[in-house]
Amino acid sequence: MTTDTARLQPLRADGAPTAGRPVAPRAARLRPLSLTDVRITAGYWAELQHRNQSAILPHIDRWLERTGWLANFDAARERRLPADRRGREFSDSEVYKFLEAMVWELGRRPDPALQQRYDAIVARIAAAQEPDGYINTKFGRPGQQPRWSDLEMGHELYCIGFLLQAAVARARTGHPEDLLVEVARRAADLVCEVFGEDGIGSVDGHPEIESALVELYRVTGEARYLEQARLFIDRRGHHVLKEIEFGREYFQDDIPVRDAEVFRGHAVRALYLAAGAVDLADESDDVVLREAVARQWQRTVARRTYLTGGMGSRHQDEAFAEDFVLPPDRAYSETCAGVASVMLAWRLLLSEGDPAYADLIERTLFNVISTSPASDGEAFFYANTLHRRELGTPPDADRPSVRAAPSLRAPWFEVSCCPTNVARTLASLTAYVATADDDGLQLHQYASGTVSHTRVDGQELQVTVTTDYPYDGLIRVRIDSRADQPWSLSLRVPGWATQGASVTVGGDTRPVNAGVITERRLWQPGDEVILRLPMNARFTYPDARIDAVRGCVAVERGPLVMALESVDVPETASVDQLRVDASEPPRLIGGQVVVRCRIRASTDHGWPYSADGHQPEPDQTMKTADIPLVPYHAWANRGPSTMRVWLPLDAPHT
Amino acid sequence: MTTDTARLQPLRADGAPTAGRPVAPRAARLRPLSLTDVRITAGYWAELQHRNQSAILPHIDRWLERTGWLANFDAARERRLPADRRGREFSDSEVYKFLEAMVWELGRRPDPALQQRYDAIVARIAAAQEPDGYINTKFGRPGQQPRWSDLEMGHELYCIGFLLQAAVARARTGHPEDLLVEVARRAADLVCEVFGEDGIGSVDGHPEIESALVELYRVTGEARYLEQARLFIDRRGHHVLKEIEFGREYFQDDIPVRDAEVFRGHAVRALYLAAGAVDLADESDDVVLREAVARQWQRTVARRTYLTGGMGSRHQDEAFAEDFVLPPDRAYSETCAGVASVMLAWRLLLSEGDPAYADLIERTLFNVISTSPASDGEAFFYANTLHRRELGTPPDADRPSVRAAPSLRAPWFEVSCCPTNVARTLASLTAYVATADDDGLQLHQYASGTVSHTRVDGQELQVTVTTDYPYDGLIRVRIDSRADQPWSLSLRVPGWATQGASVTVGGDTRPVNAGVITERRLWQPGDEVILRLPMNARFTYPDARIDAVRGCVAVERGPLVMALESVDVPETASVDQLRVDASEPPRLIGGQVVVRCRIRASTDHGWPYSADGHQPEPDQTMKTADIPLVPYHAWANRGPSTMRVWLPLDAPHT
Repeated sequence: MTTDTARLQPLRADGAPTAGRPVAPRAARLRPLSLTDVRITAGYWAELQHRNQSAILPHIDRWLERTGWLANFDAARERRLPADRRGREFSDSEVYKFLEAMVWELGRRPDPALQQRYDAIVARIAAAQEPDGYINTKFGRPGQQPRWSDLEMGHELYCIGFLLQAAVARARTGHPEDLLVEVARRAADLVCEVFGEDGIGSVDGHPEIESALVELYRVTGEARYLEQARLFIDRRGHHVLKEIEFGREYFQDDIPVRDAEVFRGHAVRALYLAAGAVDLADESDDVVLREAVARQWQRTVARRTYLTGGMGSRHQDEAFAEDFVLPPDRAYSETCAGVASVMLAWRLLLSEGDPAYADLIERTLFNVISTSPASDGEAFFYANTLHRRELGTPPDADRPSVRAAPSLRAPWFEVSCCPTNVARTLASLTAYVATADDDGLQLHQYASGTVSHTRVDGQELQVTVTTDYPYDGLIRVRIDSRADQPWSLSLRVPGWATQGASVTVGGDTRPVNAGVITERRLWQPGDEVILRLPMNARFTYPDARIDAVRGCVAVERGPLVMALESVDVPETASVDQLRVDASEPPRLIGGQVVVRCRIRASTDHGWPYSADGHQPEPDQTMKTADIPLVPYHAWANRGPSTMRVWLPLDAPHT
Repeated sequence: MTTDTARLQPLRADGAPTAGRPVAPRAARLRPLSLTDVRITAGYWAELQHRNQSAILPHIDRWLERTGWLANFDAARERRLPADRRGREFSDSEVYKFLEAMVWELGRRPDPALQQRYDAIVARIAAAQEPDGYINTKFGRPGQQPRWSDLEMGHELYCIGFLLQAAVARARTGHPEDLLVEVARRAADLVCEVFGEDGIGSVDGHPEIESALVELYRVTGEARYLEQARLFIDRRGHHVLKEIEFGREYFQDDIPVRDAEVFRGHAVRALYLAAGAVDLADESDDVVLREAVARQWQRTVARRTYLTGGMGSRHQDEAFAEDFVLPPDRAYSETCAGVASVMLAWRLLLSEGDPAYADLIERTLFNVISTSPASDGEAFFYANTLHRRELGTPPDADRPSVRAAPSLRAPWFEVSCCPTNVARTLASLTAYVATADDDGLQLHQYASGTVSHTRVDGQELQVTVTTDYPYDGLIRVRIDSRADQPWSLSLRVPGWATQGASVTVGGDTRPVNAGVITERRLWQPGDEVILRLPMNARFTYPDARIDAVRGCVAVERGPLVMALESVDVPETASVDQLRVDASEPPRLIGGQVVVRCRIRASTDHGWPYSADGHQPEPDQTMKTADIPLVPYHAWANRGPSTMRVWLPLDAPHT
C-alpha cells in the first residue's frame, strides 16, 4: 500500500485514457480530463470545494464515528456482530462514499493528515472482509440474515458498488496497487462468481454496482466485470425481484432498460441504473442501448424535472411521478438524485456531445447539489423542496434526523446518503468542467482556473478562464499554450441564454445563440475569447401542462434559480400572500434581484370554495413592494423562513 | 344469545335515549333518531343501501373467508397460531366492522339468512377470546409478539374498539344480551384493568377505542368505560408513544387534543380521536374539550379539506398536509377518512346544532363515501384522487391490491379498512337524516322516506319526504301526524345553495338563504313544506391560497361535485388538454351537465420552462367542444379513463 500522495502516476489499462477522473469511457465522442488537468482557483466552485475539504469532510468523519457506522467494520473484525451493529442496512456505503471523496481530494493535492486518516479507515475495512471476498456488516454472520437473502431491500451489491467506486477513484489517482483496490477486486470477483451466468439470476433492488463494475473493468481491464454489469442490466426489468408495495417500477424491474420510455420509480435507483447502462453501452458499442437511455432522459427532462434540475416528486417512494406532476411544495428532489443525474448527464455528454446534457449538469450543480450543504458545511438538505409554507421545527443538532426532514438543513440523517454523495461530487467537481477531443478543448462549465490537456500527438493545450460566473456573465478564456497547428476551442452557450449572448474573438464581437460555439485557430499565448452571457434577471413560465404551478412565474438569473424567502419580507409573515406584478420585469438593484409584488390580505372562510373564489375586496389588496430574492441554493441560511420559487401572478383567481 | 331479529327492544341505559343508532349522547342539543325512526324508501340512498345489502356485504364476506382473516379466529381457537395467521396486524378489525354492518342491516329489517351468518361469525370470534377477556389473533401467544408490546403500530386496542362498536350496535338494536356484547364487555373490562389509572400509562397508536368506550358506557352505564376513554384522551399528546419516522403528529401524540389548533398527522387517526373527544365531552359536560375540537374542525374544513369533503392529502403517511396543500393529483382522501369525518361531524352536529356540520356530512356522503364502491358493489376506491392522468393498469381481480391502488377500483386490499367501513356506514345511513329536540324535528339530509319520532310527552311526530334529490331540487315534506300543539319542523338549506332557494309553506313561497329554516305551526296531516333548491350546474373557484388548483375551476350541481372523464372526450385521449371557457356557464343539456372547452395541442419542448411558457401558436388552439361531465362519485365505472375535477381556465399560461 502506498502512502505517497504526491506520486500521481497515470494508470493506463485496456484502452482507458489517462487517469484521475470519475468516468473514463474507452470510446466516446468527448474525452474527460483528469482532476489535475483542470484547476479551479477562485470563485463559486472554489469556495464550495474549500468548504467541502475544510468543513464537510471533517463533519462526515465525526458523524460516521459518532453513529458507529465506521465501527461496524471493527465489530465485524472482532466478531461482535450482530450485537454491536449500528445503523441501517446500507450504512457501509456511506463509509465508501466518504472514502471516495477523500480519494479525490488526495488526487488534487497532497494532504498528509487526510492521507493518514484514509489509510486508517481502509485498514479497518480490509480487516472486516471475509476470506472469500464478501464484505458487508449487516448480512451473513450467525444471527444475521444470510447473504443475498434480501436482494430487494438488502443493499448488499449497492454497498459493494460504492466500495468499487472508491477503489476506482483510488486507482485512477495514482494508486492502482492500493489496499482498497485489492479489497474491491476481491469483492467484485465474489460478485462475479455468485451472480455470474450460472449463479443467482437476479439483481440488487438498488442499482449502483452496474456502473461501478464497468468502471472497475476500465481501470483493471478485467472483462468479467464488464460481463457481470451486462448480466445485471439485462436481467433487470424481467420481474426477477419480488414485488413490493410500491410495485416493481420502484426498482425498475418492471420493464427492461432497453424497452423503457421514461425514467420511473425511485429516482436515485432509476438514474444510477441509467448511468450504468450508458457505461455498458460505451464499452460495448451498444448504440441501441445508449439511445434508449438518451430517449428516456429526454422525456424525463421535458416532463419530469423541476426548474432546479431536481428529479423525483414523490415523498412516499422517493420516486418520479407521472409526466408533469411537479408539485413545488411536495417536491422531493432528493440531493442524491441530483448527484445521480449529474453522473448520468456527464456520461451522455461524453458519449454524444450534446450541450443539453451540460445544461442540465450546470442547472443541477447550481440549484440542487449546492443547495444541500449549509453555508458552514455542517448541515444538509436531503430533499430540496421548491416551496416551504411553515417555519417548522429546527432539526435536532445532536441526533440524526429522519431522511426528508422538511425543516431546516439537518446535521445528519438515519438514511444519510446525501452528505457523502455531495462530498464525493464536490471533491471531483473539476472533472465536469471541460473535455478534449482530437481537435481541441471543450469548455462546458465556467469557473476561474486553468484547463490543460496533452494531445495524443504530444501537443500541450492550455487555457486560463477568468470569471465571476455565476454572478457575472463575463467569461474570459485566455490561451496559454503555444501551438504550431490550429486547434479548436469550444464554449457552451447555456440553454438559458436565449438572447443577448455574444462572443469576442480577435477583437470581433458577434451575437451567439445557445448551443456550442467553436473557434478553430492557430492560437497563440495571450489570445483571448470573451464570452458575454446576459445576466439580467428574467421571468420564466412553466409548460401549461405542469398543473401545480399554473398561474405562477419563477425568476432566474443566469444559471441560478431565485427564491423568495420570508426573512426578506418584513411586511408579512407568509410568502404565500405575495402576488407578482409581471408587467414589471425583475430588476437588479445593488446586485440584488428584486420583483414587484402586491401583498394580499388573506381571510379564512368557513369553506374555501365558492362562486368567486372568495376574491378579496379591492381594498384588501394592500401595498405594493419591491421584494428581494436570493439564489435558491442560498435559502434557509438565515434562520427559519418560508420560501417560494414559483410566485403566483397577480391576476383573478390567484 | 337471541336470534329473534324482529324483537327490536329499545334499550335504555343510564340516561341514553332510545336505541338503534350509531351515536347516542346523554346530553346534546339535538337527539339522534333510531334506524327504525327513519326509513329511506326510494332514490339515491335507497339504491346504495340496497347495493350494500345485496352486493357489498356478500362481497366482504367472501373476501374475509378467502383471505383467511375470519379463519384466524378459528386458528386461535384451535391453537394453530401463529403458524396459520393471515393478513396484517389489524385484520381482526375488518371482521368486527363487517359484523357492525350486519347488525345495522338486521336492525332495520329481519333477515334470517343474515342473522344465521352473523351468529356463526360471532360464535367463531367468541371461541377465540382468552379466559381473561383478551382478544386479538396477532399478539400474545407463544411465537407471537407479547400483548401490548407494540402500542405504536400493533393496533390491539384499535381492533378491540371496533369489536366494541359492533357490540354497541347489537345492543342498541334490541340485543343487549347478545354473545357479542358479552365478548366486548369482557374485552373492555380487561382494557380497563390493563390501561387503568395504575396500569400501562399509554395509548394505542391508532385512536378508535376512545369513542367505542364512551359508546359502550352509553349502552351499559358502566362508568369505568367512560373513565378509561378519558384516560386515553388525556394521555395522548404527551409523548407517551415512541417516536416513529413520520413523527409524533402521525398518531396525534405531539400535542394534547385540548391544545391542538388543527387536525394533523394521519387523517383517520386524527378524526377518530376527535370523534372520541366529542363523545367524552358530551358525557362529561366538558365544554372546553368540545370547543377545542370544534375549533380544530373549523380550521381543518377551511384549510385542509378537498372540494369533495375528502381529508388527507399525503400518500406517504396518509396524513393531513399543511394548510392549503390540497393537490388534486396526489389527493389521498382516504375513504375511511371520509367515514371518520362523517362520524365526527355528526357528533358535533348533535352537540352544537350548526348546519355547517350537516353540510360537510352531505358533501362527504355524496362525494367520498359513495365514490368508493363500484356500481356493482364489488370493487372499491381506497384513496379518492381528484385528478387521474394515466389510464394505469386495472387492479388484479383475484388478489388484494396495495392499499392506495391508483388505478381503477380494486376488489380488496391488503390493508382493507375501506370496504367494511363503507358497509357499516351505508347500513346505518338513515341515522344521519334527521334529529329531534323538545320542540320538533330537524331534517338534515334529503331522501324519499319517512321520519317519525315519539316525543317525551308521548306526542307522535311524523313526516314523509318525497324527492329526487340530488338529481332534482324539489323536496316535498308532508306532515303525517296529527298534533294538538304546535311543533317545529326545521329544514337545512345546504351551504352550497347560496342563491335561488325557496320554501313554500301553506301556499306562501319565499326565498331562503343557506342555513336552517324553522317553521313552528300546529301541523295537521297533509300539510306540506316544499323546499326548492337551485339545481343549475355552477362554477366553483378555489381560495387563492390553494396553490395546486390555481387558475382552475370546478363544476358542481347541487351537492354533487362533477368530474370530466376521458371516456366522454372522443376528441382527445387526455383530459389535460382541455381548457374551460368560463365566459359560458355550465349548462344542463338533456339532464347532462356540459362545459364549453377548447382543446389545446400539447407539444414537448426539450426543457419545459421558458420565457413564454411555450405558449402554443394561435392555430394550435384547436376546436371548441361541449364536454359532458359526470358526478365525481360515478367516475371510473366505464373502463379505464383519465379524469379531472379541477379544470384549467382558458387563459394565458394555463
